[in-house]
Amino acid sequence: MHRLDDELRSLQASIVRYAMERIALQPPPLDGPKSADELRALYGANVTEDGIGGEEALRRFVEGYAPATLSSDHPRFLAFVPVAPTKAAVLFDMIVSASSISGTSWLEGAGAVYLENEALRWLADLIGFPETAGGTFLSGGSLANLSGLHAARQAAKERLGGVRPDRYRILASTEAHSSIRTAADVMDLEVVEVEVNDPGRLRGEDLVRTWAKLTDAERNSVVAVVATAGTTNAGLVDALDEVADFAEVNGLWMHVDAAYGGAALASHLRERFRGIERAGSVVIDPHKWLFAPFDAAAIVYRDPNVARRALTQEAAYLDEINRAPDWNPSSYGYHLSRRVRGLPFWFSLATHGTRRYREAIEASITLAHESAHEIERRPYLELAIEPELSVVVFRRLGWDAEAYERWSRQALVDGVGFVLPTAYRGEKLLRFCFVNPLTTLDDVRAILDTLAIDPRPW
Amino acid sequence: MHRLDDELRSLQASIVRYAMERIALQPPPLDGPKSADELRALYGANVTEDGIGGEEALRRFVEGYAPATLSSDHPRFLAFVPVAPTKAAVLFDMIVSASSISGTSWLEGAGAVYLENEALRWLADLIGFPETAGGTFLSGGSLANLSGLHAARQAAKERLGGVRPDRYRILASTEAHSSIRTAADVMDLEVVEVEVNDPGRLRGEDLVRTWAKLTDAERNSVVAVVATAGTTNAGLVDALDEVADFAEVNGLWMHVDAAYGGAALASHLRERFRGIERAGSVVIDPHKWLFAPFDAAAIVYRDPNVARRALTQEAAYLDEINRAPDWNPSSYGYHLSRRVRGLPFWFSLATHGTRRYREAIEASITLAHESAHEIERRPYLELAIEPELSVVVFRRLGWDAEAYERWSRQALVDGVGFVLPTAYRGEKLLRFCFVNPLTTLDDVRAILDTLAIDPRPW
Repeated sequence: MHRLDDELRSLQASIVRYAMERIALQPPPLDGPKSADELRALYGANVTEDGIGGEEALRRFVEGYAPATLSSDHPRFLAFVPVAPTKAAVLFDMIVSASSISGTSWLEGAGAVYLENEALRWLADLIGFPETAGGTFLSGGSLANLSGLHAARQAAKERLGGVRPDRYRILASTEAHSSIRTAADVMDLEVVEVEVNDPGRLRGEDLVRTWAKLTDAERNSVVAVVATAGTTNAGLVDALDEVADFAEVNGLWMHVDAAYGGAALASHLRERFRGIERAGSVVIDPHKWLFAPFDAAAIVYRDPNVARRALTQEAAYLDEINRAPDWNPSSYGYHLSRRVRGLPFWFSLATHGTRRYREAIEASITLAHESAHEIERRPYLELAIEPELSVVVFRRLGWDAEAYERWSRQALVDGVGFVLPTAYRGEKLLRFCFVNPLTTLDDVRAILDTLAIDPRPW
Repeated sequence: MHRLDDELRSLQASIVRYAMERIALQPPPLDGPKSADELRALYGANVTEDGIGGEEALRRFVEGYAPATLSSDHPRFLAFVPVAPTKAAVLFDMIVSASSISGTSWLEGAGAVYLENEALRWLADLIGFPETAGGTFLSGGSLANLSGLHAARQAAKERLGGVRPDRYRILASTEAHSSIRTAADVMDLEVVEVEVNDPGRLRGEDLVRTWAKLTDAERNSVVAVVATAGTTNAGLVDALDEVADFAEVNGLWMHVDAAYGGAALASHLRERFRGIERAGSVVIDPHKWLFAPFDAAAIVYRDPNVARRALTQEAAYLDEINRAPDWNPSSYGYHLSRRVRGLPFWFSLATHGTRRYREAIEASITLAHESAHEIERRPYLELAIEPELSVVVFRRLGWDAEAYERWSRQALVDGVGFVLPTAYRGEKLLRFCFVNPLTTLDDVRAILDTLAIDPRPW
């Protein structure tokens, strides 16, 4: 299994051929899910004592299983936050696969970690962080948010000395990403919900109003205020400068979840993020709007030393790496063994340069505004929120929740597109999220056209 | 950047050529780290506004940066837990890179998730879990352990109703992996340290002794007892049956960290794991001793429903996937966006069959015992612990801590091997961890020979 014999050489050729074909597909098929029973019926067991051979396993994957997975890079995959890697990033991800580099420590992965740090530095510059900032790439925004909040609690613990509150708490708006609530649950933090006024953007006054209701003991227990720069649901950026003012006045760590929206720091919308440079930690996911493949989320800390104290794992077999003054990615996130998942992003950035990134991001912002216009000029549609970044939320007049869902299912089956309903202030609506530079206004028009038909036929 | 133009096609050819060469290298170069200053001096900035072009970025990586990363799959990489992927797994990891499949939900990745679940089922069968068991692949053992402990706390919360203890607690031995302590810190759990008797294996009597010292309130607050099946430092398996008895009597969740050692469930040593089938959750990392590339850790729950209640993220844009009865990997670990990181493991399993896995694992166990014998027959060496799985810990008579460290650094520089000192019961020692079937007894002998020389010249 570990030596490249003739059989494996032949398999290698088949696999490379398929990978190259998949990368060249323009567009890839959208495809769609099948049930577990349907998939089971296809071939029966693949994992057996004797094996089915590489060519057969590949054939089953290509013919049977792959068509039951959506292509997240399809230009009409507009649900959730899509992934739209550059070809260079995808190709280099294959080198990461081929190379068995451990990104755990400098000792093991110096050359690769150095390059990841170069990419992180670009993010830190976009944020406006000082030269001393730093962080790491993790498997996703969930883990990156957790790591940032853990560093924040470490800072609070150091401030509080030995005094332990009844609960540690964070302040987060009702529009914060789901991972913030789950992170808090995992960390046993209480979330003090901050109600926001229309249209879902956290403002300083919301924090002040919430803060006024807390007791002194509760205030002392707050370890961070969480701001969102690009809400997943509506693509809105909190009033970061006001949040930073509030955090500063009250001595709190400001954590900014810019997992989706942070890419727009490279666009003409940078001004809307004013105040982000005053955060303690910022999360940006290159696999979202910075064209890296799954999965690469970045966390950048203003003061990485706090994170290192919070997250460095201690054990006899780790002494050698912990004792060295080197940059160990394992010390800046909750992880140890680690794929160098930031490298494909670095390679694409190095290959194409940052200007082309800016242009590609601008293209999605422009498309969001053009789509909003398309929606407004159609009598059966109505914009629900004025798009700020690249999310567009709109309603189909006269439709109930079920009609939206039937339409969405049928649109996927017909290959029209992958668009999911969402809910905004209790109302079922439709939502586009644009991060793929290959998505065109014609794609959007084609999808919008199918919404003209009354829901009953669906 | 997103269209395969002529320039990118040419880059693609270069990248595939390099990846194929890297995969064919037998062995790859061991290589070694350089300082950040040395790496900076190589080429200066790679991330620029205009870009340096793919061919140049690739050249710099291949010629300058890659040689500053260790090859974790080198047969003489014997520090930490090495990675030793099969060729089939590495090749299929390239297809995962090429395919932009989201492993977040069944809706997005049905075909891929189905196959991951087939591989998980094999692990569940090795454990001896019932048909209803299930789990997911996460980026590493740290995250997998955290997910298991979070599910355990969920179960405790459901049992306790609304009653909240002063702290939630876990019982873990002093030999538990570092990630258990960091997970507890992240989760704000108190670790009740269980002192173990020689030689570092947790036994039922250790738990009973510790339990006796707890107050009733403290006992009520314990959410899990953590057992280790293959300690990282010494490769020892806790007395799982005794731990299971203790957990059963006291109504506790048993979490087994078998991240490294779980692979030996497929070997003739299965009997030493007796009791693992009574756990609530088990972690096994295929990127350790099951020949998957970075990074793939598996968590399997006896009752995945508890995990789902603990870990499902709630948000309007996730309603569609949460409402469906499908298997969403995002609900069984702390993650959302997700590379289908279990697929390369599945492909290799399907290709080669489980028997060849068993044989490859047996080979490392055999090598550990042969190495122990080699150590014993050399007058300047002494075995510190009788190897149980595939870790060998031994001393070089007459050397102090500094001599071990100097030798280790020099051995890496000379390309002799990558072996790090560890500490065991306060004493500095050397440690081999075997998971690579290509490591031979001749490799071991060559390394041991260099230890004959008195440390002063090093």
